[in-house]
Amino acid sequence: MYVLGIDGGQTSTKCILLTLEGHTLGTGNGGGLLHLAAESGVTRLRSSLQEAIKAAFEAASLPVQPVCAIGLGLTGVENAESPEAELARAVVRELVPAERIWIENDGVAALLGAHLGAAGAVVISGTGSILVGLRQDGRLVRIGGWGWLVGDEGSAVWFGMAAARAVFHALDGIGAPTALTTLLRMHFGVDDVRSLKRLLYAADFGARGFAALAPLVGRAAAEADDVAQSILAEGASALAQAAQALYKAMDFAEQPLPLALIGGAWEHVPGLRQSFEKALGQLSVQLRAPALAPIYGAALGAIRASGADWRYAAQNMQRR
Amino acid sequence: MYVLGIDGGQTSTKCILLTLEGHTLGTGNGGGLLHLAAESGVTRLRSSLQEAIKAAFEAASLPVQPVCAIGLGLTGVENAESPEAELARAVVRELVPAERIWIENDGVAALLGAHLGAAGAVVISGTGSILVGLRQDGRLVRIGGWGWLVGDEGSAVWFGMAAARAVFHALDGIGAPTALTTLLRMHFGVDDVRSLKRLLYAADFGARGFAALAPLVGRAAAEADDVAQSILAEGASALAQAAQALYKAMDFAEQPLPLALIGGAWEHVPGLRQSFEKALGQLSVQLRAPALAPIYGAALGAIRASGADWRYAAQNMQRR
Repeated sequence: MYVLGIDGGQTSTKCILLTLEGHTLGTGNGGGLLHLAAESGVTRLRSSLQEAIKAAFEAASLPVQPVCAIGLGLTGVENAESPEAELARAVVRELVPAERIWIENDGVAALLGAHLGAAGAVVISGTGSILVGLRQDGRLVRIGGWGWLVGDEGSAVWFGMAAARAVFHALDGIGAPTALTTLLRMHFGVDDVRSLKRLLYAADFGARGFAALAPLVGRAAAEADDVAQSILAEGASALAQAAQALYKAMDFAEQPLPLALIGGAWEHVPGLRQSFEKALGQLSVQLRAPALAPIYGAALGAIRASGADWRYAAQNMQRR
Repeated sequence: MYVLGIDGGQTSTKCILLTLEGHTLGTGNGGGLLHLAAESGVTRLRSSLQEAIKAAFEAASLPVQPVCAIGLGLTGVENAESPEAELARAVVRELVPAERIWIENDGVAALLGAHLGAAGAVVISGTGSILVGLRQDGRLVRIGGWGWLVGDEGSAVWFGMAAARAVFHALDGIGAPTALTTLLRMHFGVDDVRSLKRLLYAADFGARGFAALAPLVGRAAAEADDVAQSILAEGASALAQAAQALYKAMDFAEQPLPLALIGGAWEHVPGLRQSFEKALGQLSVQLRAPALAPIYGAALGAIRASGADWRYAAQNMQRR
């Protein structure tokens, strides 16, 4: 019997087709997801899922067919019981009949993948930021993930917004001059910093546009720009503070908490990882590379929900 | 001959019909403006202006007719030469023929009104925040006004976003517990703070929705809530820092800078004015009530552009 694992993010939707034993048969991609509450959110979810699922079956040279279980880790889904999860469940049921549908926030899928379903935590900093932990008693802990307008500190969007703010502050004489001014001017191809405002508020800029500015902060910081270094330190410190709050809510008093860093910001913002480790201070954690990518976490969620031997499947996934 | 003064903000558009000597004949209101770069921004500008102009003429029992000058202070217009100003000029020309059209950012109209065209400055904190000064040599100075995503510190939107962030931080155990949690739950009529996220990101919430939360910060601060007091102090300090930067860019070394506080946040956020005055420290300013409302500033801009005696007109406006 087959299992589908789906990782639905803002940029793209990935689907993987596996056997119940964790052997990969094919993978496929679809478009990104909008927030499900957004006007065309459901239409977008349907088309992105359909595209990714079809591609995964095609890659396995199989027709789209009923599966034993589907696991979905989706951005914008608060938890398995939220209205968004219900919506997504209904949509996915139409696309592929399945005996079991496991659905969760994409952070939870990342967590299951990172520690193969064992207790531990992940610090996700991609477009947005969120920390998720699985306690030894099986309970989930979640910190952050409040979105780009009032949260997501230390995410790519947060760094991009901070960069723009710093450039305007420098122009106004409120903040120190910064190399970010030149970097942003070059990024947008404009001479006049004032004209940046118009670009930042364009309808199609939004969270993704700000996220694309994040690497500039790391670059300027690496070139010893004080303002960029402050932003980098502030973002790293916000993530470390969140990690401290997460640690308190976990039950790892006796041993170091396994912690995996996941998401594009860790790769694309030079120096973020080092600043974060420094800001963690004496916190008793054990930094680890994630064992499996989030999409395998979603598949593990599905396999577990179907009652099959998910630990055995996880071993096979690792051997791929 | 007649003159029109127009104050176009995000919430409403006000129009006043006056004689060239500054005597008010009628006033009218129209809908609010979207950013002119927004999809239906121009359509909205046209209908809101038309509505307000028609109402002002009607209030004066006059048919809509050509005027000698129109002055417009519009939100979203960077300055008299920006593309948005060109757009607005074309739209208003279609509605009412005029010999002269004066158009500026709404902050400049507020400044002209506040100090009757004399040198001085205004600190505007409404939905957004911006500081504008007129130097003794006639040059304009502008600080802030970078919009709600990357600026507008100390504005109603900024306070509302800070309040939501504080509530989530308290929930996550990153920040201290705060009375804002209860106040926000009551404001939205929800039991579960987590469900606030969905409401804050609803398509029709946005800047205006956050601005409506600002008074809660003042209320909680007045009731000795530490978190709210910190937010209040931080917002006030950001406005004071902007005022310091503005002061440096002005040419008032020998005398105190006349400074008027304008905008809804000063009224609706209890304690903001006192915190701001405290944060100003030793800065040599003379706080003053604005002589005239922004709409009269727009009319003064028009009268000045037409070459008439605008100082005389200003006196008559004050006598109304």
